Amino acid sequence: MKLETAQVKNVLRNLRFRRGLVTAVVRDYQNKEVLMVAWQNREAVRRTLSEGKMHYWSRERKKLWMKGETSGNVQLVKAVYVDCDGDTLLYDVKQIGGACHKGYRSCFFRKLRNGKLVKYRKRLFNPSRVYR
Amino acid sequence: MKLETAQVKNVLRNLRFRRGLVTAVVRDYQNKEVLMVAWQNREAVRRTLSEGKMHYWSRERKKLWMKGETSGNVQLVKAVYVDCDGDTLLYDVKQIGGACHKGYRSCFFRKLRNGKLVKYRKRLFNPSRVYR
Repeated sequence: MKLETAQVKNVLRNLRFRRGLVTAVVRDYQNKEVLMVAWQNREAVRRTLSEGKMHYWSRERKKLWMKGETSGNVQLVKAVYVDCDGDTLLYDVKQIGGACHKGYRSCFFRKLRNGKLVKYRKRLFNPSRVYR
Repeated sequence: MKLETAQVKNVLRNLRFRRGLVTAVVRDYQNKEVLMVAWQNREAVRRTLSEGKMHYWSRERKKLWMKGETSGNVQLVKAVYVDCDGDTLLYDVKQIGGACHKGYRSCFFRKLRNGKLVKYRKRLFNPSRVYR
């Protein structure tokens, strides 16, 4: 999904950036599994919608990044939802490889079970071989 | 789902609060629809896990609140997932009524269609009759 410049501007007008950011919740477009949650500034949203690949703002590194720019695990945008406040976007994406930098398909690979936090998913790849 | 005090403390040790907050993504425990995204401070997480009902921190009102305290639309916790960074929790809940204060089941009732943001869900209730 790629939007025209005018369409992107129209979406941006409906958003409410807090401290310059909106929250992005990202799901697998097929099985709707939540893959990750990250942050976007205005430019990250603009690039995501115009190029059709997920871009984020790193609060720690204070820079724009495209998911997969190092790992190849890009996220192709398939659908976009906006919440009532306009400060959170929900994206359905085609995830190449895994979303999690720790090697899992989803960042939510830990679950509470009998009151304990346990890993309940298998790792897809070895992060040290993917992120150099 | 209600945790013992020691179990709650153990979960809290695995979390990484940023500016005192973690992000909470909330899904319907049955169909996995994303209902809302909100924020939690340490006390909101503690109450959520020990009482089994979703509690949040309002960044605008700067106060703790329980979902449904005014509307009756409470969220009963069924499962909890924690992301790789420990700064986002994913909750599966049994949602009574609708999650959105605008009267919808989910806060994500708007979707991009042909480049335009459109409402694609029907309202469940009239907010002015529920929030007094």
